Amino acid sequence: MAKDKPTRRPRAETPKGFRDYFGADVTERKAMLDAIAEVYHRYGFDPLETAAVETVEALGKFLPDVDRPNAGVFAWQEDEEAASKAGDWLALRYDLTAPLARVAAQYRNDLPSPYRRYAMGPVWRNEKPGPGRYRQFYQCDADTVGAASVAADAEICMMLADALEAVGIPRGDYVVRVNNRKVLNGVMEAAGILNPANPEAFEDERGIVLRAIDKFDKFGEAGVRALLGDGRKDESGDFTKGAGLSAAQAARILQYLTARQELEDDYQQYLIDAAKERDVERQSKLSALVAYIADPSHQGGLAAFVAGSKANIATLMRLEMFVGNSEVGREGVNELSEITALLLAQGYGPDRIVIDPSVVRGLGYYTGPVFEAELTFEILDEKGRKRQFGSVAGGGRYDGLVERFTGQKVPATGVSIGVDRLLAALREKGRLGGAAQGPVIVTVMDRDRMADYLGMAGELRRAGIRAEVYLGNPKQFGNQLKYADKRASPIAVIQGGDEAARGVVVLKDLALGARIAAEASLAEWKAQPAQTEVPRENLVAAVLAMLGRG
Amino acid sequence: MAKDKPTRRPRAETPKGFRDYFGADVTERKAMLDAIAEVYHRYGFDPLETAAVETVEALGKFLPDVDRPNAGVFAWQEDEEAASKAGDWLALRYDLTAPLARVAAQYRNDLPSPYRRYAMGPVWRNEKPGPGRYRQFYQCDADTVGAASVAADAEICMMLADALEAVGIPRGDYVVRVNNRKVLNGVMEAAGILNPANPEAFEDERGIVLRAIDKFDKFGEAGVRALLGDGRKDESGDFTKGAGLSAAQAARILQYLTARQELEDDYQQYLIDAAKERDVERQSKLSALVAYIADPSHQGGLAAFVAGSKANIATLMRLEMFVGNSEVGREGVNELSEITALLLAQGYGPDRIVIDPSVVRGLGYYTGPVFEAELTFEILDEKGRKRQFGSVAGGGRYDGLVERFTGQKVPATGVSIGVDRLLAALREKGRLGGAAQGPVIVTVMDRDRMADYLGMAGELRRAGIRAEVYLGNPKQFGNQLKYADKRASPIAVIQGGDEAARGVVVLKDLALGARIAAEASLAEWKAQPAQTEVPRENLVAAVLAMLGRG
Repeated sequence: MAKDKPTRRPRAETPKGFRDYFGADVTERKAMLDAIAEVYHRYGFDPLETAAVETVEALGKFLPDVDRPNAGVFAWQEDEEAASKAGDWLALRYDLTAPLARVAAQYRNDLPSPYRRYAMGPVWRNEKPGPGRYRQFYQCDADTVGAASVAADAEICMMLADALEAVGIPRGDYVVRVNNRKVLNGVMEAAGILNPANPEAFEDERGIVLRAIDKFDKFGEAGVRALLGDGRKDESGDFTKGAGLSAAQAARILQYLTARQELEDDYQQYLIDAAKERDVERQSKLSALVAYIADPSHQGGLAAFVAGSKANIATLMRLEMFVGNSEVGREGVNELSEITALLLAQGYGPDRIVIDPSVVRGLGYYTGPVFEAELTFEILDEKGRKRQFGSVAGGGRYDGLVERFTGQKVPATGVSIGVDRLLAALREKGRLGGAAQGPVIVTVMDRDRMADYLGMAGELRRAGIRAEVYLGNPKQFGNQLKYADKRASPIAVIQGGDEAARGVVVLKDLALGARIAAEASLAEWKAQPAQTEVPRENLVAAVLAMLGRG
Repeated sequence: MAKDKPTRRPRAETPKGFRDYFGADVTERKAMLDAIAEVYHRYGFDPLETAAVETVEALGKFLPDVDRPNAGVFAWQEDEEAASKAGDWLALRYDLTAPLARVAAQYRNDLPSPYRRYAMGPVWRNEKPGPGRYRQFYQCDADTVGAASVAADAEICMMLADALEAVGIPRGDYVVRVNNRKVLNGVMEAAGILNPANPEAFEDERGIVLRAIDKFDKFGEAGVRALLGDGRKDESGDFTKGAGLSAAQAARILQYLTARQELEDDYQQYLIDAAKERDVERQSKLSALVAYIADPSHQGGLAAFVAGSKANIATLMRLEMFVGNSEVGREGVNELSEITALLLAQGYGPDRIVIDPSVVRGLGYYTGPVFEAELTFEILDEKGRKRQFGSVAGGGRYDGLVERFTGQKVPATGVSIGVDRLLAALREKGRLGGAAQGPVIVTVMDRDRMADYLGMAGELRRAGIRAEVYLGNPKQFGNQLKYADKRASPIAVIQGGDEAARGVVVLKDLALGARIAAEASLAEWKAQPAQTEVPRENLVAAVLAMLGRG
């Protein structure tokens, strides 16, 4: 290196789209993840940690950005010296689900089946960074591989609700919204843009429709109608091409999409009428659900939310109408009905979990139930407008991901919590941000007595007190106190030659000092100098007392 | 995707050199890191988490493999769409020190100074993978940036010792070995291969010498002598080029290298004689250390290891001889003497920390004190031979790393714990591996009563018991019990139609069953079927009692 010519200095910059986490950012996230892991553990899930790096072929291409199917990941080619197979493409994982599918296939003879696992860690997306949009972020997932039963989906929804409450989101401030990709397909079949005999036809149109439905929250009914038709021009004048559906087709999709909203007032009569008409079809799970609710023995203990659950049931009934004769659509409604019944029986009513036709989930690999956890309390956006906090977790069933590797169907379902979003929510709710206490600072008055100062810090630490010696240049004492202030130190320990000779130390109560400085008059300030002298041998006891731990 | 032609299935393989961690592998590492973080926290260190990705220019090239200066990292170029500056090279961090240097420069106006931080996480090396040699592994670092005093180095050494004890390595089973790069440079100057007036001369030779010293443990004196001279042929016949030193030069290096070993018998007389001769030089830190030890008031409380510390002092005296008139060499001996004195005063004697001239540390950025934690207990290697467990942590002072960015000198020192190695050591010592308890399994006898089974699991969980419903295909009951066995489940809960009608559940004590199967005769086995029937409403109480938590 010394032979290189001097070059310009490197820039000290986080790469674009990446960020650094300091202090409480790290410990608060850790505490939150620990609380979630505890819930996952209690549900029988085991931890799994895969490497950040996967082969590109194992990852597959399932990122939502269908317009750039080759991009979205950070990838590179193995070089010849390092790899046994030069030329292989490696990439950073873009989620925790694709690695799980690889693991489930690779270890299929050794893992228990069903395999319940949780995983926490960073994932990477090679996207254009923007404000609040990072290229590395944390996910926290739980999945069940090898369980075809929708009981597995219901369990994931319950566990998600429990996890949100465990980290401090109170009931009523969140809702888990549930839908089913099969219902979406059924509605598209009924609208004439999905033909089971020719599944590849209208693929582009369906992609546009799904993305339009996904934007319902953001663009509203008019925006989605435009996207279903010729296209939509946004405020900046940019034009997004539409799906080109006829007005009748678009109406069908929109009717579906608003199935939940429209019915909030008149669902009860509707429900009763429909239930009466449906006696001939008692085989369907939806009929069973209606019967379950109607059974007086079930209404006893559950009365409180049986009533509320009628909203979910009414939504399901509308969905059954809208999928018409589509077989896959009816299957989807059946699955949603069964999930609703299971959740209801466990006490997870519509105060926590609702059926919502507008849930799509972007990832391409979902095949059945999809879910999304939304925080319903309001925050102010960057322009000072009120809006709901929004989504913090999502997931669903992906029965095809493991099959990619093995050729055999392996059902799987799971959820991913957006860790940074949930942390931001907890900050909004004031559940975090209690300032971390800094260490007691032993100041250095006499450079040659460093051993004595280290000894004081050591004694304090052995008593369980966070403590350190000031290790910067001790010449300017003011800098030492400024440092203590920056570290949010509660106490400074001071011992000059005079104090050493007299066998004492001075303790400066910095917390009290700050309070006095903020609140007290000059006279009070002088009367209460927030500093005290104690015998050297009483150091630990005096510090403990000052910290209120005496 | 549906339009693609069917292609071959992707391979379900971890990329070469990467691995997956399951269950206890994850939780045991987490517990160990939590214990270390607690020690770091108490010493006043704050957490920092940087992204996995850095710019190549920020990382710099400091990996030990000087023969392949451009390799060693996983790197790729920003593509045009994603980045604001296309063409920038990004890479995965190869350690946690280079990102810290970048952070210290980037936030220099905001961070406290000195800045004490700890960091934990994976790092990546693009090396040829081999048995036990992975390309992603965990590090756990603590560093102090902005403290020029060797008190900061001493503190790191003490904290490292405390951290090892906190995770379960008993005192006596580890030693922190300390050296100083300046001493190494001094000896090379004395041997005529470093000229302060022309520092670039003999650079290659010095590189070979450092690597030879680093291999002292492995190759022994003869091997190092060969590497210092013409070169060394290993058992397989491969030849490594030597430094080409004369016999006299090599002897000087070897004498230095064995300074510690040779003196273990006669150090005491040597020490006294030397101390007497040195009165004129009382300004040196080494003399101060001798005086400190000789002071009767210091021998009182410290008598036990003052005696032992004479070995360290004797080593230092030999080192002072070997560096001759080299200014940097004398500075190095002074620093080591000061560190030894500070540690001694804090009670960290040679049972925990020793001066060892053979410590080099591979990384190119070290400028002063270097340290290494070695576990001294013996294990059997893959060929059944006894050997010491070896190094689990290392670090040192790197005063030039931040300067790369800012042009201003910023002193820094720190240590990195090799997390996987330390975990392996704890397993060797039997400190880990208590089998994690699996969940209580609620079996499914009747698919239509899934809600009841989920209800049982829910009740158990609300009582703090890890529990789950079997969610695989319930048809073959034997598979459910095999599953419970694979999960190390303590209890299976069984309720068929008959039991449901009678309002009872059957509890199968799988832990007891396994013990009976292993130990009991057939008659005993029949007499003690390890299963019991309890009223449904007593489920939770009976499970708690069976788990010994009643």
